[in-house]
Amino acid sequence: MLGIGIDIGGTNTKLVVVTRAGKLLAHERFRTEASKGPASFLKRLAAAVACFRRDYGRQLVSIGIGAAGDVDPERGVLRFSPNLAWRSVKLAGPLEKLTGLPCAMENDANMAAWGAYEIELGRKTEDILTLTLGTGIGSGMILAGKLYHGSTGTAGEAGHLKIVPDGRPCHCGASGCLEAYCGSYSILARARELIKNEAAFVKKFSAPGKEKLNTICLTNAAAAGHAGARRVWAETGNYLGMGLAGLILVLNPGCVVLTGGVSRARKWFMPAMQKVLNHQQIKTPFQKVKVRISDNADLGSYGAALFGLEHGLK
Amino acid sequence: MLGIGIDIGGTNTKLVVVTRAGKLLAHERFRTEASKGPASFLKRLAAAVACFRRDYGRQLVSIGIGAAGDVDPERGVLRFSPNLAWRSVKLAGPLEKLTGLPCAMENDANMAAWGAYEIELGRKTEDILTLTLGTGIGSGMILAGKLYHGSTGTAGEAGHLKIVPDGRPCHCGASGCLEAYCGSYSILARARELIKNEAAFVKKFSAPGKEKLNTICLTNAAAAGHAGARRVWAETGNYLGMGLAGLILVLNPGCVVLTGGVSRARKWFMPAMQKVLNHQQIKTPFQKVKVRISDNADLGSYGAALFGLEHGLK
Repeated sequence: MLGIGIDIGGTNTKLVVVTRAGKLLAHERFRTEASKGPASFLKRLAAAVACFRRDYGRQLVSIGIGAAGDVDPERGVLRFSPNLAWRSVKLAGPLEKLTGLPCAMENDANMAAWGAYEIELGRKTEDILTLTLGTGIGSGMILAGKLYHGSTGTAGEAGHLKIVPDGRPCHCGASGCLEAYCGSYSILARARELIKNEAAFVKKFSAPGKEKLNTICLTNAAAAGHAGARRVWAETGNYLGMGLAGLILVLNPGCVVLTGGVSRARKWFMPAMQKVLNHQQIKTPFQKVKVRISDNADLGSYGAALFGLEHGLK
Repeated sequence: MLGIGIDIGGTNTKLVVVTRAGKLLAHERFRTEASKGPASFLKRLAAAVACFRRDYGRQLVSIGIGAAGDVDPERGVLRFSPNLAWRSVKLAGPLEKLTGLPCAMENDANMAAWGAYEIELGRKTEDILTLTLGTGIGSGMILAGKLYHGSTGTAGEAGHLKIVPDGRPCHCGASGCLEAYCGSYSILARARELIKNEAAFVKKFSAPGKEKLNTICLTNAAAAGHAGARRVWAETGNYLGMGLAGLILVLNPGCVVLTGGVSRARKWFMPAMQKVLNHQQIKTPFQKVKVRISDNADLGSYGAALFGLEHGLK
C-alpha cells in the first residue's frame, strides 16, 4: 500500500511515493510555473502521477497534497496563495477525477506537521506544534494525535502572532508579527542594519560562486565569530522564544518541531530562545515540552503522502 | 442517568446534579475553606455527594470536577492552586473511593469550555475557545469536538499570552500578559489612574450599600456617560482584541465564548475589541468566527457534570 505526496510551493512542486512506514520509493519535481494557470498545472501534475502509476500500479491507493496558502480542506480548494498568485482554485476534486485516487489536501505547514508526527516522532507524542522557518513562518499542529486545522482549515497562522505592538513590518501587511522578526527576510534586513560593508561580508562568508547575503552566509559569519552576525541570531532566538512562549502557554504541546532553512542556524539562535522559555513564570508547560529540529527538507511531501494514506484508508 | 458537577473555587465550592440534557435537578454550595486542608475538604465534599445519592440513588453515574489551578487530569491531581494555596493534592482518586463513582477532573476553565460547548452551543460548533473574564483570565478549548487539555493538562493559559513586551505587571509574576490588561484587577487599576475623586465616583455609580470600585460600578459609570469609565472599557476591548486576534490566528475557532463577571460590560468593550478583529490582515479565520457572551455563571459546574457523564460513559 503506497501513497503519493505532493508539496506545491511557489517555485517547485515536489512529488514522492512512500510506503505506509514512510520509506521513499520514488520522487519527482517540476517547476510550478503558477503563471501558466491552474489547468496547465493540473495537467502536468496528473502526468507525473500517471508515471508513478505505470511503475506501481494498484499499490498506489491515495494522494495527499500540501499547498502553500490558505486551503479549504473540506472542499479541496486553494482559497488564496500569495506565492502562486491564485485564488479559489479547486485542486483535490479535479485530481481525483484525473487519477481515480482519493485525494486529501491541506496547507503545506499542516502536512509538514503530520510528517514530523509520523517520521520524526513515530507517533509517540500526541500534541505537537511544528514551525517551518523559512522566508515566512508556517505552522501546523497535531493535537491529541489528529491533524488540527480549525474551523476553516486556517489554524496555525502562528507566524502572524503579534509579538511587538507596532513593530517591524510583516509581509502580511500588518506589523510586529513573529514572522516580521524571525522570517528570513527580517533576519537579513536586521543583519543589513548591523553590517557596515555588505559586499565584503558576503565575499568573506559565502561559499565561492554563491556570493549572496542569505541565512547560510549569516550562519557562516556567526561560526567565524562575527559579532554582528551572532547578535542578529541571538536577537532572532529571543524573538522566536517570545512567540513560542505564547504558543506553548496556549497549546501545551509535548514537542515543538522546528524545521525549514532557518532552523539550520540552531546553534546560534537556540540558546537565546531557550533562555526565554526557561524564564517563564508559569512552569508546567515549559518543563514538559521538548524542542526538536528536523533537517528533513521533505517533511511536507512525506507528510502529505502519509496523511493521504491515513485519510484514504478511513 | 445523572451527573454530579463540582466547581472548586478559592472561596466557594459549587455542586450541581444535572441530566444528560443539562437540566438542573439540584444544587449545593459550601465554603471551600482551603486553609483547613484537603482532607477536611474531601470529607465535606463526600458528605455533599452522599446527600445527592440519598435523593437520586443509582441514577447518579459520574462526577466531574473543575478546579481553579494547574490540574493533572490523567492522575486526578491538583498540582498547584494559587487560589487554594494547595500543592500536589490528589482529589479524583480519593473521591472515587469515598463515593464509588467515576470521577473526571480538569482545570475549571476547561470545564467551563465544555459547558459552553454543550449548553450554549448545543455541540453544533466543533472548535471553540472560551475565555473566562474575572479577576484573572482563564481559557479552555474544545477542538474538533473534544476537550483539549494538552500534554500536561495545562493547555489554555491564554490569560498569560504576552500582548505588550515589558508591559503592566501580571499576577503571575510576569509582565504584559493579556490578564495584566483585561483581568478585573488591571481594569480597576487603570480606572484608578483616570478617576480624580474615587470616593465620589464610587458613591455616584455603585448600588446603595455596595459602595466599592468594581467592574459593576465602572459599567454603571460608562452607562451614565462618564468619559473616563468609557475610555477604560474601550482600552480593555482593544487589549482583549489584541489577545483574541493571536488566539484566533492560531486556533481558528468557529466560536469564541466570553464568560465571567467582566463579560457583562460587553456593551462598553465589545466595539473596540471587534474593531481590532475586523482590521486583521489575514481575513479567513476572522470572517468565520462568532463571538458570543454567556451570562451563565454556572458554566463551570454544569460543564463539569456533563463532562463527567461524557467521560464516565466511555
